[in-house]
Amino acid sequence: MGQLRIGMIGYKFMGKAHSNAYQSLPMFFPQAIKPEMSVICGRNAGAVSQAAVQLGWSESVTDWRELISREDIDLIDINAPSNAHKEIALAAAHAGKHIFCEKPLALTLEDAREMLYAAEDAGIVHMVGFNYRFSPAVRLAKKLVESGRLGTIYHFRAWFLQDWIIDPEFPLVWRLQKEIAGSGSHGDLGAHLIDLAHFLVGDIHEVIGMSETFIKERPIATEMTGLSAKGSKDDPKGPVTVDDATLFLARFENGAMGSFEATRFAAGHRSTNSFEINGSLGSVKFDFERMNELEVYFTSDDEDVQGFRRILATDPTHDYADAWWPPGHTIGFEHTFIHEMLELSSAIEEGRQPEPNFRDGVKCQAVLEAVERSIDERRWVNISEM
Amino acid sequence: MGQLRIGMIGYKFMGKAHSNAYQSLPMFFPQAIKPEMSVICGRNAGAVSQAAVQLGWSESVTDWRELISREDIDLIDINAPSNAHKEIALAAAHAGKHIFCEKPLALTLEDAREMLYAAEDAGIVHMVGFNYRFSPAVRLAKKLVESGRLGTIYHFRAWFLQDWIIDPEFPLVWRLQKEIAGSGSHGDLGAHLIDLAHFLVGDIHEVIGMSETFIKERPIATEMTGLSAKGSKDDPKGPVTVDDATLFLARFENGAMGSFEATRFAAGHRSTNSFEINGSLGSVKFDFERMNELEVYFTSDDEDVQGFRRILATDPTHDYADAWWPPGHTIGFEHTFIHEMLELSSAIEEGRQPEPNFRDGVKCQAVLEAVERSIDERRWVNISEM
Amino acid sequence: MGQLRIGMIGYKFMGKAHSNAYQSLPMFFPQAIKPEMSVICGRNAGAVSQAAVQLGWSESVTDWRELISREDIDLIDINAPSNAHKEIALAAAHAGKHIFCEKPLALTLEDAREMLYAAEDAGIVHMVGFNYRFSPAVRLAKKLVESGRLGTIYHFRAWFLQDWIIDPEFPLVWRLQKEIAGSGSHGDLGAHLIDLAHFLVGDIHEVIGMSETFIKERPIATEMTGLSAKGSKDDPKGPVTVDDATLFLARFENGAMGSFEATRFAAGHRSTNSFEINGSLGSVKFDFERMNELEVYFTSDDEDVQGFRRILATDPTHDYADAWWPPGHTIGFEHTFIHEMLELSSAIEEGRQPEPNFRDGVKCQAVLEAVERSIDERRWVNISEM
Amino acid sequence: MGQLRIGMIGYKFMGKAHSNAYQSLPMFFPQAIKPEMSVICGRNAGAVSQAAVQLGWSESVTDWRELISREDIDLIDINAPSNAHKEIALAAAHAGKHIFCEKPLALTLEDAREMLYAAEDAGIVHMVGFNYRFSPAVRLAKKLVESGRLGTIYHFRAWFLQDWIIDPEFPLVWRLQKEIAGSGSHGDLGAHLIDLAHFLVGDIHEVIGMSETFIKERPIATEMTGLSAKGSKDDPKGPVTVDDATLFLARFENGAMGSFEATRFAAGHRSTNSFEINGSLGSVKFDFERMNELEVYFTSDDEDVQGFRRILATDPTHDYADAWWPPGHTIGFEHTFIHEMLELSSAIEEGRQPEPNFRDGVKCQAVLEAVERSIDERRWVNISEM
Repeated sequence: MGQLRIGMIGYKFMGKAHSNAYQSLPMFFPQAIKPEMSVICGRNAGAVSQAAVQLGWSESVTDWRELISREDIDLIDINAPSNAHKEIALAAAHAGKHIFCEKPLALTLEDAREMLYAAEDAGIVHMVGFNYRFSPAVRLAKKLVESGRLGTIYHFRAWFLQDWIIDPEFPLVWRLQKEIAGSGSHGDLGAHLIDLAHFLVGDIHEVIGMSETFIKERPIATEMTGLSAKGSKDDPKGPVTVDDATLFLARFENGAMGSFEATRFAAGHRSTNSFEINGSLGSVKFDFERMNELEVYFTSDDEDVQGFRRILATDPTHDYADAWWPPGHTIGFEHTFIHEMLELSSAIEEGRQPEPNFRDGVKCQAVLEAVERSIDERRWVNISEM
Repeated sequence: MGQLRIGMIGYKFMGKAHSNAYQSLPMFFPQAIKPEMSVICGRNAGAVSQAAVQLGWSESVTDWRELISREDIDLIDINAPSNAHKEIALAAAHAGKHIFCEKPLALTLEDAREMLYAAEDAGIVHMVGFNYRFSPAVRLAKKLVESGRLGTIYHFRAWFLQDWIIDPEFPLVWRLQKEIAGSGSHGDLGAHLIDLAHFLVGDIHEVIGMSETFIKERPIATEMTGLSAKGSKDDPKGPVTVDDATLFLARFENGAMGSFEATRFAAGHRSTNSFEINGSLGSVKFDFERMNELEVYFTSDDEDVQGFRRILATDPTHDYADAWWPPGHTIGFEHTFIHEMLELSSAIEEGRQPEPNFRDGVKCQAVLEAVERSIDERRWVNISEM
Repeated sequence: MGQLRIGMIGYKFMGKAHSNAYQSLPMFFPQAIKPEMSVICGRNAGAVSQAAVQLGWSESVTDWRELISREDIDLIDINAPSNAHKEIALAAAHAGKHIFCEKPLALTLEDAREMLYAAEDAGIVHMVGFNYRFSPAVRLAKKLVESGRLGTIYHFRAWFLQDWIIDPEFPLVWRLQKEIAGSGSHGDLGAHLIDLAHFLVGDIHEVIGMSETFIKERPIATEMTGLSAKGSKDDPKGPVTVDDATLFLARFENGAMGSFEATRFAAGHRSTNSFEINGSLGSVKFDFERMNELEVYFTSDDEDVQGFRRILATDPTHDYADAWWPPGHTIGFEHTFIHEMLELSSAIEEGRQPEPNFRDGVKCQAVLEAVERSIDERRWVNISEM
Repeated sequence: MGQLRIGMIGYKFMGKAHSNAYQSLPMFFPQAIKPEMSVICGRNAGAVSQAAVQLGWSESVTDWRELISREDIDLIDINAPSNAHKEIALAAAHAGKHIFCEKPLALTLEDAREMLYAAEDAGIVHMVGFNYRFSPAVRLAKKLVESGRLGTIYHFRAWFLQDWIIDPEFPLVWRLQKEIAGSGSHGDLGAHLIDLAHFLVGDIHEVIGMSETFIKERPIATEMTGLSAKGSKDDPKGPVTVDDATLFLARFENGAMGSFEATRFAAGHRSTNSFEINGSLGSVKFDFERMNELEVYFTSDDEDVQGFRRILATDPTHDYADAWWPPGHTIGFEHTFIHEMLELSSAIEEGRQPEPNFRDGVKCQAVLEAVERSIDERRWVNISEM
């Protein structure tokens, strides 16, 4: 079995999730290549050095170019803010490193395509971090769709509802600045919904959307980490340059109808990442706040006992479940990353591209941007325009 | 088709539910004998006369003996307080009237038996008001058990949780006085659970229980109607002489294990009347607060999609549902009484005893009293002792 | 107190729901004018005569013009198929009769406006049958919005999901024919969502939609009643001329964002009529399949116990609940009509227009038609265009 | 900060859960002493050596006495089958090692007490593995009880329902043999409920129970690991010597009433570990299958919005949550062990006993055995008898 020496850029929310995934993989999936947590990289020397200790990395550096130039690194893991993805990925590809990149792949479709082409030219393995695909319950949904057990798909509706910035005094963190984040709830939350739609239903044909920024100005953040931040109402204010909420309608290539909503202004929803699929033979419903569950309905059930089943995807028959705990013993958010790393390491070992890879990242970006264009131009936009 | 001229004694909570049932029966079950709402009876002339108008009765009287002696009455409906049941029922039976009697049938097992024997001697039709049997979802549970689709029954657990007297200032209404009500939550709520157990699982072999009166004294009620009442903390207090909560374990004749709990001190539970049955091939769960639903599990489901199904018992295949609204359009509490009256009128027309009848009332009373004895004597009590 | 002698046109699904409402009103709301169930009208003499007996009407006729011309009728209740609404309503208004008309008010906005103007000219009382406003849980939502307890409204999302025609062999009933029904799920189900949006959030500014007819041809129905019908796959087929599903996005006048979906192709959803509102201070969620419940969230709750509350709107404090049963004892679909008739009879007695009236019917129709135009012209349509 | 060099005995289900906890602790709780995963011990040299590699232990041995005698070990972690606990714990205590022991502490109360006294005599730190105390949602329940926000506690009801041996062909694994496991569902599942009762409500005064072994004989297991095993119906059979289900009623010292049920025969319940507490001011409900959630009700809520709140215990204010992911991003079963190890390492560092420790293990054992006596002697048993 080969080696997988990792250099990771970024060490906040996603950096921790990835570190945990690398650390946990060997215990639960011993068949996978064991990732070596070699080097972690961040701009602040003190902070990244402390992160290295806490997160279990052998070494820390502050210059990502130096990291990429090292010969003892096989994979670059990019979880820096979105505006840094492209430059790092291009350099990593040119250096022949495999790449795992957090979503959204880039700030623009053009950048995303450049990243994909660079990765393909370099012949490296590339992956993008749509981690929700890796919930066992989502895999079960995928299996039911693919095997035809739900029949022809008529409807996909999905919503990712959060409330973390509903307080107008919540400060202006980087995720609320277009030049760094690219977009707001659209790219942060909607991107996940789009990827799930691609994964579960197929390609999208056309879209039309609407978006809103409810709170136009916020206190400039004095301190921030992960999703939390501190500010005060006496701080000077700056403009919010991304969307607080974006909704869109879609028609899929296969004729299914889609409805998407991403918002950070849904009071009471800490992180409701939810979808439902209705087909001619059945339906499925998923909500990430109860991520171990999938609700499933079959039209073929005996007529007196037809109803949505609440399935705990923790039985040995369910993807990944056998590696964990006995049936009924649930897993959590972080496990999606461990399964993601399993796919990555398997792909590297097998010499194939993992799923989702940069192609999926580009496809998602095309839809994100088509939605934005549809909003700007107030019209339906065909994905093939992009 | 024959006649069914009704004389009803009582006009509060249950009197209203019964009146509505008689009134609604012809519209939704036109095949049934149409009940004539002839005479309503109560002690307070003004109040009962007003009730006659509101509830749709042709006439009102204040003397139940007079009512029973009338030739133009076929059925006596008894929903007066529990301590009045026996005397009225005996007189009605002797007068050859059919009887519908609210639960609990009587204050004691001895009284209940006397009522049953009198009814049988008189050859009348008799019914007891265990209305929860008549929820379509409960009928579905019954059908699943009887048809063997749940296999051998291992467990029955049931709880009836309310919170209407959790406030210590709630006054001393008749339901809290042993000489009128017989018992507290045990006879009021537990009786329903016991009847459902008999209906769904079978006879009980032995029991052991415990009970408690958390609030020993309450203000004497100055006004009361139905379940609501008014008092104040400056009112003189009187002793609560019934149980606030009673729990018991049971072993069924067929070997199943039972757990029962009835309480009026479960904060947040307005009326959670809930049971679950576990068998070798499946399980069912019911909660009256969502009375249109039954949750059903089958061990024979495909292994990747095993889970409790939430079935809305509103499809044409479900008992009674076809008489009501399209699938997914729910019914409520009062409908259990309409279905109950359908069974009563059908039984009268067909010359058979309805289910549940006084035999079921006696059987329930035997268990109620066995539980009380088990509490007094702190030991297991066999139902055959009673 | 005045008289309210009713002539009702139509006697299927809605005719039964209305009849039950008229019959039940006096028992539960004795303060209201007692409706006289005078005359029922339908084209088939035998069937309507039988309906009169079952539903409790004194008389039956086959000619609605004759009915309208009678002096002993105060109110015309129109629940015939949608394409008959206009002609009957105009005639009734001209005859000075009050009108209760089922939704959708008319097949077109133009017709709806004509009906409104005729009613206003005639000075009659007019009401339109958006019955879901009359669920106690929906009233609670309204109260929370109006009192400001949810703050500024950011989001309204609503979906009405059914599956009653998911079987391609389900026949071509009148509800699937544009010339009779006007539209499909859009006017049947979407109309309710639009009215709830108007009721709960306010006027809609602009919309854009999409729709689909998944099954283009169906067996011609040989028999039909209410929502059920029989056909066979050997029957000749005819084209479905209405939408199976319609979705649209909306922007409200007050800046809130809206998402609407109505479909008859959501397997497992018998009648999921559901909405959620997110405001700056809280949220509410409603699902008609659990119509006694409202989920409510407040941002002001103590930080360690913030969560959606599941409220049973059966407490005395909730609208209408006091007329029914003790807390926790639920009501059903039909009760929305009883409450609707209470509003109607109160309005007549008080000499005011009830809510919702023809103005609301017109407003709903304007949005329905704006959505249709937005679909035809593939662009956002401003309601003021209509 | 001190050292914590661990020697762990056992490497199956619990061994994996503990290993993961030791490995994850430093990343998420960097303030804790970092556990050194020094030596793992098992009887089968090949298997334990392989386990060492997979689970991340530096070394493996086959003789637990040798392990205990080593000077470079500070803590002995015992997760071998229950019948081995006592001998190992006594030896470890005599050797002055701290002990973490899985539940149930011992096969008998006498043994458990001997273990406690030995640990106390030796002055070591001792802990017992009631991991469910460490769910953030359970901690929130504890906080609400302790702070008085639920008022006087009236009711505790708890059930631990599983279905893993419902198939009669499931083989006779060690957990079904009294001499190894001590008891069946009672000691395995009921023990957790009893500990939660102690933790949340307080000491139990008296109990009465019933138990059953539904399937008396099973195929002798040919292979087993964790909770899964293989057999076939042609295998020779052996007697099941433990209970399949045990129920009991309890009265707490503080007057609260308790109901407990543990079964492995509840079809559809993979691992429903659930409790509810009702107090004079509020209630809480918990179900481990949705372990991130606590339902909470307060009688003091405004009267129109009273209902159970569904709280996701993932906010920064909730115990442990801040160390994990943003609000709404859930954790799973294994995290209870990580939090358990945090308590263990904190206690060691602070020189105090962790909670729960051997005292809690003994207290639990006393109740378990009192229940067994109450079953044997068919009478109420006072815990002080034990």
